[in-house]
Amino acid sequence: MIVIGELINGMYKDVGKAVSNRETDVIQHLAIDQVKAGSQVLDVNTGPYSKNPKDDMKWLIESIQAVVDVRLALDSTKADVIEEGLRLVKNRAVINSTNADEAKMDVIFGLAKKYNTQVIGLAMDKAGVPNSREKRLELAATIMAKAIDYGIGTDDVFLDPIVLPVNVAQTQGREVLEAIREFSCLSDPAPNTVIGLSNVSQGTKFRSLVNRTFLTMAIADGLTSAILDPLDKELMDAMITAELVLNKHIYCDSFLDAYRKK
Amino acid sequence: MIVIGELINGMYKDVGKAVSNRETDVIQHLAIDQVKAGSQVLDVNTGPYSKNPKDDMKWLIESIQAVVDVRLALDSTKADVIEEGLRLVKNRAVINSTNADEAKMDVIFGLAKKYNTQVIGLAMDKAGVPNSREKRLELAATIMAKAIDYGIGTDDVFLDPIVLPVNVAQTQGREVLEAIREFSCLSDPAPNTVIGLSNVSQGTKFRSLVNRTFLTMAIADGLTSAILDPLDKELMDAMITAELVLNKHIYCDSFLDAYRKK
Repeated sequence: MIVIGELINGMYKDVGKAVSNRETDVIQHLAIDQVKAGSQVLDVNTGPYSKNPKDDMKWLIESIQAVVDVRLALDSTKADVIEEGLRLVKNRAVINSTNADEAKMDVIFGLAKKYNTQVIGLAMDKAGVPNSREKRLELAATIMAKAIDYGIGTDDVFLDPIVLPVNVAQTQGREVLEAIREFSCLSDPAPNTVIGLSNVSQGTKFRSLVNRTFLTMAIADGLTSAILDPLDKELMDAMITAELVLNKHIYCDSFLDAYRKK
Repeated sequence: MIVIGELINGMYKDVGKAVSNRETDVIQHLAIDQVKAGSQVLDVNTGPYSKNPKDDMKWLIESIQAVVDVRLALDSTKADVIEEGLRLVKNRAVINSTNADEAKMDVIFGLAKKYNTQVIGLAMDKAGVPNSREKRLELAATIMAKAIDYGIGTDDVFLDPIVLPVNVAQTQGREVLEAIREFSCLSDPAPNTVIGLSNVSQGTKFRSLVNRTFLTMAIADGLTSAILDPLDKELMDAMITAELVLNKHIYCDSFLDAYRKK
């Protein structure tokens, strides 16, 4: 599993405040802690209240890269904010994200080609989030076709079936899980698959339990990546164990520690 | 999920001793606790050291039925021990188990027809446990064909793909999970599927973590029943949450309590 740490996001109150006030140590601690906990990629999002998102993105990336050597997922709805970030990243970036709209894909895959990045592709379009696995698959196929047009490697696309909160869209859990399974068959090499995990437990009472249960189920269905809170130890334990069961790393009695030391 | 409580089994030291010494209260407490924790069925196994398994089975069933009104899974390799139990059960029984050997199936499905029971069918034969999903499916199909010959309802068969310990047969986790998915397609109505869950963690250090992770993954693949320790609260929490995600019971903030109160 490729773990994308979700915590550097201005929508979280502490992070939003740190961005506004240029509190470098807050961001750097979050970066170090997430990498130590097993994130191979860190999501970077200036947040909904950022007044100068390009400046904020630049400051975030420079703050993070000063303390950790890690890949970044540049998370913004604005292409110019993403491109500002792409000029600064030291490692291969992930663009978070495109959807299946033609105009959006042309901009994002254009940037991906120019800067040799990977791309998260959301299985949604102007009509919103689909409510069936079939519509999700159709949109994912649209994204893959466009990626191929732009010469992007099929395994450089991370298809996201769009997870919805279980308390308001309870029928969608099964649809998302089956979509993950079906996405894997769209190309050879298979695309990566990714979910914004925390969304499944939004507004629920036992968030960590719901998150780790859903992640475990998604891994059973072939999920290869997730945007999640890597500081949730029980979540990471569940992820490591699910991968153990699937023979992704070799059993030893101390398999949890062994994975973390890698 | 149909939860089959595994704790009344003479292979456990305390239970074996209780059977030998006719300690009724030990067995009755285990029965009451497992039903309270959510078992719809209790497995009953006199254990490997039972000198008079027919007498022991009779005593166990009478002890259990004196305190709880619950279905029993009569767990023995000996047909006469199972038939002794079938004469005594108050509710519809489950026979645990047949395998795919012709002679064994004829005896067990004969009993199942005579006593109107359900049957656990192990996807193994004289050659032992298969090491691929394909061979498991072949044996499961053999069992279903025989069940149909005997006029047993297809959903009265619980197909067991045979779970092996992850520390010694690490490639088999994926095979078992895929077999569960494939078993469900063997008939309409679909057969039930069942696993002896604790086997996956045999000899491992973090047994509860491995058990609940594997159960969650198996539920994602359509598992409908498991023989497990219902007193493992974290395991039951994971099971309830996995079923919640699949929309098997309706979300409310107190979904764990709500499920348990049912």
